[in-house]
Amino acid sequence: MKALVIHPPHDLRVEEVETGSVGPGQLRVRVKAGGICGSDLHYYRHGGFGAVRVKEPMILGHEVAGTVVEVGSGVSAIAAGSRIAVSPSRPCGHCRYCQEGRQNHCLNMRFYGSAMPTPHIHGAFRQEIVIDASQAHLVADGVTDGEAAMGEPLAVALHAVRRAGPMLGRRVLVTGCGPIGTLIVMAARRAGAVEIVATDLSGKALAAALAAGADRVINTAEDPAGLAAFGADKGTFDVLFEASGSEKALRGALDALRPGAIIMQIGLGGDMTLPVNVLTAKELELRGTFRFHEEFAQAVAFINKRLIDVRPLITASFPFTRFTEAFTLAGDRDQAMKVQLTFD
Amino acid sequence: MKALVIHPPHDLRVEEVETGSVGPGQLRVRVKAGGICGSDLHYYRHGGFGAVRVKEPMILGHEVAGTVVEVGSGVSAIAAGSRIAVSPSRPCGHCRYCQEGRQNHCLNMRFYGSAMPTPHIHGAFRQEIVIDASQAHLVADGVTDGEAAMGEPLAVALHAVRRAGPMLGRRVLVTGCGPIGTLIVMAARRAGAVEIVATDLSGKALAAALAAGADRVINTAEDPAGLAAFGADKGTFDVLFEASGSEKALRGALDALRPGAIIMQIGLGGDMTLPVNVLTAKELELRGTFRFHEEFAQAVAFINKRLIDVRPLITASFPFTRFTEAFTLAGDRDQAMKVQLTFD
Amino acid sequence: MKALVIHPPHDLRVEEVETGSVGPGQLRVRVKAGGICGSDLHYYRHGGFGAVRVKEPMILGHEVAGTVVEVGSGVSAIAAGSRIAVSPSRPCGHCRYCQEGRQNHCLNMRFYGSAMPTPHIHGAFRQEIVIDASQAHLVADGVTDGEAAMGEPLAVALHAVRRAGPMLGRRVLVTGCGPIGTLIVMAARRAGAVEIVATDLSGKALAAALAAGADRVINTAEDPAGLAAFGADKGTFDVLFEASGSEKALRGALDALRPGAIIMQIGLGGDMTLPVNVLTAKELELRGTFRFHEEFAQAVAFINKRLIDVRPLITASFPFTRFTEAFTLAGDRDQAMKVQLTFD
Amino acid sequence: MKALVIHPPHDLRVEEVETGSVGPGQLRVRVKAGGICGSDLHYYRHGGFGAVRVKEPMILGHEVAGTVVEVGSGVSAIAAGSRIAVSPSRPCGHCRYCQEGRQNHCLNMRFYGSAMPTPHIHGAFRQEIVIDASQAHLVADGVTDGEAAMGEPLAVALHAVRRAGPMLGRRVLVTGCGPIGTLIVMAARRAGAVEIVATDLSGKALAAALAAGADRVINTAEDPAGLAAFGADKGTFDVLFEASGSEKALRGALDALRPGAIIMQIGLGGDMTLPVNVLTAKELELRGTFRFHEEFAQAVAFINKRLIDVRPLITASFPFTRFTEAFTLAGDRDQAMKVQLTFD
Repeated sequence: MKALVIHPPHDLRVEEVETGSVGPGQLRVRVKAGGICGSDLHYYRHGGFGAVRVKEPMILGHEVAGTVVEVGSGVSAIAAGSRIAVSPSRPCGHCRYCQEGRQNHCLNMRFYGSAMPTPHIHGAFRQEIVIDASQAHLVADGVTDGEAAMGEPLAVALHAVRRAGPMLGRRVLVTGCGPIGTLIVMAARRAGAVEIVATDLSGKALAAALAAGADRVINTAEDPAGLAAFGADKGTFDVLFEASGSEKALRGALDALRPGAIIMQIGLGGDMTLPVNVLTAKELELRGTFRFHEEFAQAVAFINKRLIDVRPLITASFPFTRFTEAFTLAGDRDQAMKVQLTFD
Repeated sequence: MKALVIHPPHDLRVEEVETGSVGPGQLRVRVKAGGICGSDLHYYRHGGFGAVRVKEPMILGHEVAGTVVEVGSGVSAIAAGSRIAVSPSRPCGHCRYCQEGRQNHCLNMRFYGSAMPTPHIHGAFRQEIVIDASQAHLVADGVTDGEAAMGEPLAVALHAVRRAGPMLGRRVLVTGCGPIGTLIVMAARRAGAVEIVATDLSGKALAAALAAGADRVINTAEDPAGLAAFGADKGTFDVLFEASGSEKALRGALDALRPGAIIMQIGLGGDMTLPVNVLTAKELELRGTFRFHEEFAQAVAFINKRLIDVRPLITASFPFTRFTEAFTLAGDRDQAMKVQLTFD
Repeated sequence: MKALVIHPPHDLRVEEVETGSVGPGQLRVRVKAGGICGSDLHYYRHGGFGAVRVKEPMILGHEVAGTVVEVGSGVSAIAAGSRIAVSPSRPCGHCRYCQEGRQNHCLNMRFYGSAMPTPHIHGAFRQEIVIDASQAHLVADGVTDGEAAMGEPLAVALHAVRRAGPMLGRRVLVTGCGPIGTLIVMAARRAGAVEIVATDLSGKALAAALAAGADRVINTAEDPAGLAAFGADKGTFDVLFEASGSEKALRGALDALRPGAIIMQIGLGGDMTLPVNVLTAKELELRGTFRFHEEFAQAVAFINKRLIDVRPLITASFPFTRFTEAFTLAGDRDQAMKVQLTFD
Repeated sequence: MKALVIHPPHDLRVEEVETGSVGPGQLRVRVKAGGICGSDLHYYRHGGFGAVRVKEPMILGHEVAGTVVEVGSGVSAIAAGSRIAVSPSRPCGHCRYCQEGRQNHCLNMRFYGSAMPTPHIHGAFRQEIVIDASQAHLVADGVTDGEAAMGEPLAVALHAVRRAGPMLGRRVLVTGCGPIGTLIVMAARRAGAVEIVATDLSGKALAAALAAGADRVINTAEDPAGLAAFGADKGTFDVLFEASGSEKALRGALDALRPGAIIMQIGLGGDMTLPVNVLTAKELELRGTFRFHEEFAQAVAFINKRLIDVRPLITASFPFTRFTEAFTLAGDRDQAMKVQLTFD
């Protein structure tokens, strides 16, 4: 069976790999669809991001769905032939954070396709993979493999929205409408936001945000003062989801936030210089958000019921052997939202 | 102009009343539609509920929408001719609860059509009414007066859901699918509940709950053990909205609730005998919910955007002079969800 | 080695028992002090409480402290000779509640001295016991074994206070000033309550509450209307800790609670008939509270630093062979707060 | 009567001012004690802070206590001769933030001794002042005027601690042990923090923190790696109160914080450059905190009951005419914690 392997510094290759045997509590899965994430792109283009570097060959990918082809002993909930979304998150279950129900901070996390720890953790851009049954989430009939593979980024968005607190009736601003920002628009709407405004520098991205349910979009390249009207009486928005990673976007949004507003910072950027006096005087709350845990199952449930319809976000799909085309398109914000691979 | 006036103990009459003059900050409104609420029904059929009794003539009604026909001095946000939903809630703004942002507990509340205080507070089942501009919420084009008049019961449902805490990804049980229970199904779905099960004794009510978005309904008259499957491993649901006012419904749902689950008790019932040892051992939380404040504006916004579509709940509409027919139908759970009056 | 064993229905005996060997990760402990809890008393006097019955011989006791006499392999944090408080709580670590950080709801809990499951779980009123190292919490020099044995009931009180939410600046009412009620007075004060009023029917208990830090106590036997003054303007207290298990006490306190107040119900009582309309109209929250988890370590830390001084609560101490005297005194609310046993 | 008036840019003078007459609901107060705050110092030394500049003569001071000498009509709760602490906070009561119970964000705030708005709001460093009765909080017998004047900075500390969420059992780090940092140590202890570590560059400040109840202090000038041991397993502290205003202090503390920890940022600093990737990956929450509202009454209650004993913080007291000595000492961190003035 074949896999997509990144070699340091950033040389991507199709290689033969072994699937391994299925132990108790495990499943062998034929991978059907896999989405290219921003981190995959960073590994491909730059060999890493921030302080994280690819130091050894590593299979990429953590947004996949497939079909179960073999079921290990002791697994009763899932049968061979089942279509599943695969959670890439494998917390240890024993460390103090796991025992507190905060598995995304597991001290021994083995998250697919991550060069954070060394040895790196292999990913799931491969034709076959053996997983723990607890990673498998059943996909409803009529839902495509591609949709199912959106479970992972949707889980990231749901986690960010959940960490922002109750959303019902809230006014929400989203800065940065890439795949995660757009999924946050969907998730915030699903969670009951009464008004959603989204900003970006790209008209294409903003069109996607509008289609995803934003009430209004502002192109801050064309209309730099577009948020000014929201600054009256100390501000309008209860929550800002900052999904651009841009200090300028964050600073530019502060006046539009109400006192006590929550800023969810998504994505692993670098240093930002922030006006702490504004944060203090308006009692703003800047919260980080990182991956997910229980939200993966919720994401698949929302996709299964089409309570969140991720289909408009899937720009294109390529056979994994055409990875150059796929990664190139995925890297073009003006052309692509989510690009996926198939592994048949 | 005419109004629907209840006389003690429970004699409802159409009577001529004066509209009064429009002061600064006020509006004169031509009432178009008004929904009959459970409390209106109780006044009509029993002269009150619990310890509350009709002691003097009182105009009924608190779920109304209409058109502005005169604008008082100092009002700039609303013009004559505007279509509005009217909030029946008039907190004083000065007492300690108002100053804490808990206006629904105002010490000097003047809520429309309420016999709780004496002298009673007149309601809004009348052809014309003078209101404070702060009670008026603009209705979008294409949204009917009847839909707008659903703003009030939807605000009650939204308040109950908001008080239940974050809803995104939660599993929800609703016992009792009258108008409020059904609106809670809608509101909980809007707020991101991932699974909603509803119970009632009436198939008609359950059909409405299903149409409102419930994933599954259980007729506990026909299937008394229908919740048993949800009791495994100490329970399934994160939140129970108890909208039936029935001790039996509440007790029957406890096994299906997870440890730490929240029980929202809606509606002013009387005494209930509860197994406190179960509440304690499972660390359940029984929370009351009463009226609304900020949720009225949110309700109208959700209706305006059809993010919550209340139309299926409106069973029928009668001219207010045919109040006997209207109240009779409104009192028949097997026939009616929400019955409204028109005042032209 | 000897132990205190309850035989059905409620015959308490001193019996010889084997200590068992020390496995990896375990400790052998010489028990020094053990407090008699309300549940021990119920087993002794009535053979159980509520639906729980003693069906087979069971060692009593779950509030103990002692000295480590043997250390199993793999334990590095605790040395032989260490003085420790012993947590009686042994969650499985694997079930879904453990993985959510809600270990007090563990599906496979083995809590010392409990007849809830059958076979019953033996307790710690014994001269020697083998425990898991994770149950051991180091006791500071100068702190007595008796104080250390108060770690368990203090953990119960801390858990109740923690579940009541932020306490800083809150006004608190405690109904029922037995050992748990009095520890809650201490814990609520420690947590920043600005005003604490306590009620009971016993002057002795109220004197203890006053000594524990209550600002004011009311003997509701002598002054049944003593809470009336707190009912003005819809009520005074933000939180009620109901530690009497009395429906009358709970109902009698409702008028004194502010809208939105939290009622913590402690102890496993039976049915109570509650005025649900009052809970609803005032939006009260009735929350159960059950045992503890992380609070055990906190309790020992507070005792070690004397940030909570439990010494005044220890009424008397008896050699365990004089259990009849000890249990008799423990059962006399007018004479005793906490009675402890020694096991030398 | 005389007052301490700052003239632009920063010339402080004793000047004669008129007291004004006492209207309905008001009190005339003979000021007894007034604490010098950091903002007073900034006005005195630099003519302002951040973007705030003294543009016109303004009476300084907002931490005062005194004795009521005249009572306006309609005031019944406070009699002439009463000793009171004076809240410097005067929200309008009508704006949307006041109506939400967030008075510290009032759109029309008139806070004593503030050059933020123009015209500036005069302060309370004056021999006599007319206040609203709602600003007056009774002081207990035996509590000094100086202690009472600590009500204001303690309210700031209590607000910061309250905004950090439940404190019971939490582990707390305080960076910066000036008057506010030290009061936060006291407030966090009062609120139930189980472990408090404080850092500063000054041994004198750290000695005060230790006296205030910190379990351990670290001089980061002498021991720059003093926090390293707290960084194991992704960190130790649940809450950081950053009271130094130093970017270096904040950055240096991040490794010692647990995932999900809360950072309370106190004081109006300027820009800080923060490692947003760390905030994100550890899901830290950076929250601003600004002034207070309900906490003023709580601060006076804690001082009245000596549940928080502020006396050790009062370094010295000078007659207001010796303001040069007083402000010089107040500005010397190695000599002074809180310096107060008397106005007899």
